[in-house]
Amino acid sequence: MCEPQEVRYRIVDVRRVGRAPEGHASDHAAVEEPLELRLHGRPFAVIMRTPGEDRALAAGFLLAEGVVGSAADIGAVEHCRHPDYPDAHNVVDVYLIGGAAGSLERILEERRNIVANSSCGVCGRRTIDSLRERAARVAGRTVFDKRILADLPGRLRSRQRVFDGTGGLHAAGLFTPDGACERAAEDVGRHNAVDKVIGGLLLEEQLPLAGRALAVSGRTSFEIVQKAWCAGIELICAVSAPSTLAIDLAREAGITLLGFARDGGFNVYAHGERVGR
Amino acid sequence: MCEPQEVRYRIVDVRRVGRAPEGHASDHAAVEEPLELRLHGRPFAVIMRTPGEDRALAAGFLLAEGVVGSAADIGAVEHCRHPDYPDAHNVVDVYLIGGAAGSLERILEERRNIVANSSCGVCGRRTIDSLRERAARVAGRTVFDKRILADLPGRLRSRQRVFDGTGGLHAAGLFTPDGACERAAEDVGRHNAVDKVIGGLLLEEQLPLAGRALAVSGRTSFEIVQKAWCAGIELICAVSAPSTLAIDLAREAGITLLGFARDGGFNVYAHGERVGR
Repeated sequence: MCEPQEVRYRIVDVRRVGRAPEGHASDHAAVEEPLELRLHGRPFAVIMRTPGEDRALAAGFLLAEGVVGSAADIGAVEHCRHPDYPDAHNVVDVYLIGGAAGSLERILEERRNIVANSSCGVCGRRTIDSLRERAARVAGRTVFDKRILADLPGRLRSRQRVFDGTGGLHAAGLFTPDGACERAAEDVGRHNAVDKVIGGLLLEEQLPLAGRALAVSGRTSFEIVQKAWCAGIELICAVSAPSTLAIDLAREAGITLLGFARDGGFNVYAHGERVGR
Repeated sequence: MCEPQEVRYRIVDVRRVGRAPEGHASDHAAVEEPLELRLHGRPFAVIMRTPGEDRALAAGFLLAEGVVGSAADIGAVEHCRHPDYPDAHNVVDVYLIGGAAGSLERILEERRNIVANSSCGVCGRRTIDSLRERAARVAGRTVFDKRILADLPGRLRSRQRVFDGTGGLHAAGLFTPDGACERAAEDVGRHNAVDKVIGGLLLEEQLPLAGRALAVSGRTSFEIVQKAWCAGIELICAVSAPSTLAIDLAREAGITLLGFARDGGFNVYAHGERVGR
């Protein structure tokens, strides 16, 4: 039998453009928050996730990482209960037993040595704070034609050479206000496609990318906004939905965030002042 | 002007089921390989990516991580040229200059302390080798009815309580051969949804998950197969395309891999012997 799962969303204000009914409306956004996973009180991983089933998430993550092999290796897995810790619901403590506990030092040491990371960005509150310190609010006030914005997914798609062949690649592209594509990239990872676009222009000494719009083929998570912010991009236009953390970060960063850009319209989630007539 | 981008795919043999023309065919799969990013010769990150524009990817990744702020911080970024290193095309060396170079020790130390990781799994050759050591080949030979397999995405979708509201959540579900859903989960991260399903059953001491099929809402990357393998799952059924590394790992692990499960049919990428009449 399926367990009823705990899932979370938040109601957000959006402006609908190019699709009836136009104007202000309410939309549901999937919640995204960092979960800190601790082994015996020591930080092990930060996972950007939708809250709910955090204990299961922690156990499954540790299985795939080879830290535990079965339930017998887990002595306890529970949310942090420290009364002074405001984000305790975003911290899960795991205590190993038996052979797994004996391997704890080796596990932590291996993790330090691998220093591996997928391209999704190093997250968590510390990272968000550090981002605030080094990235200035995006100040440019370029106004983009709404018909050109609605057309960006189609223009990006026309640049995707492989997508139609494999169905397996994400795409990102950087566009000027007149809709010209300055650079585009494809990758199995959505974040990688964004890094390739921004990194290529960084190497050509084109940063900051003021007056430009970034189009992405999928959803917008925290990391996409993080990457755009670091590059000074003014507007993000995504084919699919943004997460709550993406919306919050875009509002704070001064970045215009569009979602569900399809069928000639889009929703505005942040800083609509750059969306022109 | 858009630079022509280097993108890569591989032709793979598939079997088409439930969609004309049925039978063996060729398909394109997007290439996925680990890129090792080194700072001054020391390992910094491993990024699962589609080869091509690796220098741009490295630069963009380091910008978002706060290691560099502009091209002026980068002395050199180039592929490894060591003649004895067989995977040199999957290694990029970055050398910092100026203030960024002076911060190198602090950067590496901070990274060791954060030990952060998104849920996409720690990758690279070392991880694949370690996976081989600890995970036995999936030996079960459960045969699944092809009509039930083709219906799994629909059954998973009916479990997605939030998806229709937000469009922003991925889903994963574990099914028995008669199509019953044992557990399902949703998350902004595809990998998290899989971890929640497998981790929940791990905590209930249900592993290994022999005789079960895992349905996922998006594409299949290396990490999805890795997670299924660690749990002993026999079959993966995805709505969208698998990467080359997902296909290779499924074939090696003895896991049946289905893709493009939609419109009453699917493609078989690995171990079709579990697909019944």
